[in-house]
Amino acid sequence: MTSTALLTDHYELTMLQAALGSGTAHRRSVFELFPRRLPTGRRYGVVAGVGRALDALEAFRFDDETLAVLEEIVDRPTLDWLASYRFTGDIWGYAEGETYFPYSPLLTVEAPFAEAVLLETVLLSIYNHDSAIASAASRMTMAAGERPCIEMGSRRTHEEAAVAAARAAYVAGFATSSNLAARRRYGVPTAGTSAHSFTLLHDSEEQAFRAQVESLGKGTTLLVDTYDVAEAVRLGVEVAGPGLGAVRIDSGDLGVLAHQVRAQLDSLGATGTRVIVTSDLDEFAIASLAAAPVDGYGVGTELVTGSGHPTCGFVYKLVAHEDDTGEMVSVAKQSKDKASIGGRKYALRRRDPRGVAEAEVVGIGEPPVDDGDDRPLLVPLVRDGEIVGREPLQQARARHERSRAELPVAAQSLSRGEPVLETLHVGG
Amino acid sequence: MTSTALLTDHYELTMLQAALGSGTAHRRSVFELFPRRLPTGRRYGVVAGVGRALDALEAFRFDDETLAVLEEIVDRPTLDWLASYRFTGDIWGYAEGETYFPYSPLLTVEAPFAEAVLLETVLLSIYNHDSAIASAASRMTMAAGERPCIEMGSRRTHEEAAVAAARAAYVAGFATSSNLAARRRYGVPTAGTSAHSFTLLHDSEEQAFRAQVESLGKGTTLLVDTYDVAEAVRLGVEVAGPGLGAVRIDSGDLGVLAHQVRAQLDSLGATGTRVIVTSDLDEFAIASLAAAPVDGYGVGTELVTGSGHPTCGFVYKLVAHEDDTGEMVSVAKQSKDKASIGGRKYALRRRDPRGVAEAEVVGIGEPPVDDGDDRPLLVPLVRDGEIVGREPLQQARARHERSRAELPVAAQSLSRGEPVLETLHVGG
Repeated sequence: MTSTALLTDHYELTMLQAALGSGTAHRRSVFELFPRRLPTGRRYGVVAGVGRALDALEAFRFDDETLAVLEEIVDRPTLDWLASYRFTGDIWGYAEGETYFPYSPLLTVEAPFAEAVLLETVLLSIYNHDSAIASAASRMTMAAGERPCIEMGSRRTHEEAAVAAARAAYVAGFATSSNLAARRRYGVPTAGTSAHSFTLLHDSEEQAFRAQVESLGKGTTLLVDTYDVAEAVRLGVEVAGPGLGAVRIDSGDLGVLAHQVRAQLDSLGATGTRVIVTSDLDEFAIASLAAAPVDGYGVGTELVTGSGHPTCGFVYKLVAHEDDTGEMVSVAKQSKDKASIGGRKYALRRRDPRGVAEAEVVGIGEPPVDDGDDRPLLVPLVRDGEIVGREPLQQARARHERSRAELPVAAQSLSRGEPVLETLHVGG
Repeated sequence: MTSTALLTDHYELTMLQAALGSGTAHRRSVFELFPRRLPTGRRYGVVAGVGRALDALEAFRFDDETLAVLEEIVDRPTLDWLASYRFTGDIWGYAEGETYFPYSPLLTVEAPFAEAVLLETVLLSIYNHDSAIASAASRMTMAAGERPCIEMGSRRTHEEAAVAAARAAYVAGFATSSNLAARRRYGVPTAGTSAHSFTLLHDSEEQAFRAQVESLGKGTTLLVDTYDVAEAVRLGVEVAGPGLGAVRIDSGDLGVLAHQVRAQLDSLGATGTRVIVTSDLDEFAIASLAAAPVDGYGVGTELVTGSGHPTCGFVYKLVAHEDDTGEMVSVAKQSKDKASIGGRKYALRRRDPRGVAEAEVVGIGEPPVDDGDDRPLLVPLVRDGEIVGREPLQQARARHERSRAELPVAAQSLSRGEPVLETLHVGG
C-alpha cells in the first residue's frame, strides 16, 4: 500500500507545527470518533471500514516524496518530526459490523496530540464512507430476507469508493458484488453475466443468447429486457433448455414482470430458473417485491450512495488531554449547536435476559457496569502502535448478523422513526 | 499508477469471453457515455474527470497478478487475449469543465467491442463521481460570486473520492482545498489553519491563539467559536494585532454572527481581517449569506456529496457496431423506460450572435451544421490508442468559467427548474 499520509487536511499539518512550537504536541491526548445522530429516520447504523482504517494507519508514513510536498507548508522542525512519524498509541473501537447509535464512541485514539491529530481526516473518510454504505446495505439485506442481494453499484461512485462499497455491503450481508477489485483485495465473491450491449452486438437476440450459453453454460443469467421480455424468456429456455440458471429483468414494472416471467418459465418447464431483478432498487423497492416471485436483487446506485445518506457525519474530537502536571483533563467545545461531551468513553450494549438489546450505555471516564446480560462494545484495535484488531472479513459479516438480530423488532421497520436504542450516558 | 484493470464489473469479463467465443468480439463498435437527464431541478451539469479517465485508461493493463485473479472467472483464450490488452481505438468527448445537458454525448468510444466494453465501469465511475461534484461545486461558486470557496469535505467521503472531489471542485471554480493529496497529484492549491482540538489542547484560548500566531504568523485564520465568539475575536486581535488575517466561524447563525464579528473587528481596527464561515454550507446557504459581510466560504459535506446528487446517472451504451459485411449499424435497447438512441453522436452548442447559448444540438450519425456562431463540443481525447487529450487543470478551470458564462441568465437560478438549454437531436 502506498503512503496514506497525504489523505489529510492541510490544517492538521499547520496545527502540528504550531503545537510543536508551543510545546503541547507531546501532550497525551484522547480523540473520539463518534456520530452526533443517525441519519434522519434511521433506526440503527452499522460500523464498517475498521479493517481498512487499520490498513491506512499502517501505511501512514511520511516518505521523501511526501515530505517534499510538505516543504511548502510546514517548517523544518515539523518536517523532521514527520520523517520519523510512527503511531505509537492505542486505539479501541467498535468491531466491524457492529450496530451503532447516536454518540456511540466508535473509536478512541489515545496518543500524543501530534500523532493522533494527523489521523483525523483519513479515519473519518474511511469510517464516514464505509459505515454509510453498510448502514444502507443492512436495511436492504433485512428487507430481502433470505433472498440474496447483489452489489452492482461500482459505476455510480468513485472507482475506489466502489471497492470499499462492495466490501462494506458484504459486511452487511450482501451475497456478492460485481466489483473485481473487491474480489482481489478483500475476497468478496463476485458475479455477473452480461449487459444489453452484448445482446445488441449480435445480429439477433438468439445469436447473443446462444453465444452466452455456449460460453458460460446453461447455468448463466440471461438478460431478457433488451427487446421484448416474453419473447426473450421463450427464446432463453429454447436455447438453454429448462435448466437455464436465471433471467434478469432490468427495466419496467418489476413486480408485474416477475409474476409474468415466473408463470412463463414455469409453463415452459423451467421451474428452477431464477428471476433476478435489477433496476434502481433500494430497501423500499426490495420490500415492495417481497410478495413477488423474485429470487435475487441487484442493487446499484442506492447502495453506493447510502440510500439517501452518502455520509455518516462522524466527527473526530479531542475529549481529554494531559496537562502540564501529567493529569488527564476532559475537554469539550462549548459552542451552541455543535457541543460535544468531554472525557474518555466506554460503551456496552445493555441487553435483557433474553438477549434483546435495550440501550446503548456510554460511560464517561469509566466503563459502565455490566448488568449481567450486557455486551462490551470496545475492542482493542491498536496497542502501543501495533495493530492487533485485524480479522477476516467473514468475522465482521457474522458479527453484523448477530448484532442486528439482537436489536428490538422495531429495527426491522423501514419507515422513518427514532433510533431503536436510546443512548444513556453514565458517569463523568 | 497501479493497474486499473480490476476497477471493473465481473460481467464485462464474462461478456468478453462469450463474445470472443462467438466471433463478435472484434466487431468495431461505438459506445456512448451520456446522461438521460440532469438531477431533478438542476439547470446544467459540469463535465469533470476527463483527465483522470485518461490516466485510468493508460493504466488499464492486465498484469500477471491481475490475470491470476481472473483465472477463476474466464477461460484460457480470454486470459491470453487480456494479457496483451491495449486500447487501440479512438475516443472523443466533451472537454473537462464544459457544461452539459440531457443526452449530451460526453464520450464516444470507438474500438473493437472487446476493447471498449471493458472500459465501461471505470469510465462511468470516474465521470459519474467527478461530474456530480463539479456540478454541485459550480452552483456554489456561482452563488459565492467573487468570494472564494474553500473545499474541505475530505473527511465526509471515501479517502480517494476526496482527492478527486478536491480536483473537480477546483475545475468548477473553488479557490482552494484542504486535501494535501490533491495538491500533490493535481497541483490544487491547499489551505487551512486549525481545528477546535488545537484550542482545546492548550490550557486557554489565549495560549492556543498565541501558539498559532507565533508559528503561522499574524496572517493566519483563528477559529473563534470554541468557547465564546465575541471574546475570541477580542482575544484574537489582541494577540495578533489588527493585521490578523482572518477569523473562522464554524457554528451558530452564520449570518448574524458574521455581522457581529465584522462590526467587532472594525471597532477594534481590524478592518482588513477577513471573516470565513464554514458550517454545513451548500449553494443555498452561500446565496443566503450574500448580503452578510463574509469573505470566504468553507464547504464540506454538501460539496463531496454533490449537494443532494452524489452521482450523475451517466450510462455507457453500445450505439453502433460493424456487421459481418463491415457496415456500421445503429443499435439501441427498446425497453419501455430505459430506451436509448442508436447511432454515433456529434454535438455543438448553438449560440446566438451575441454568444449566448441557445441549445444543445446533437447530431445522430453526422455532425450538426454550424449556424455561424456555434461551438463544436467534441474534442479528440484518444487517437489510435494514444492519449491526445491531456491538458493542464487550469485549462479545464478556465473552460468551465467560459462555458458557464455563456449560458442563458436562468442558469444562475438555484431554484428547481428545467435545464436552461433544450437538447435537439438532428439527423439519424
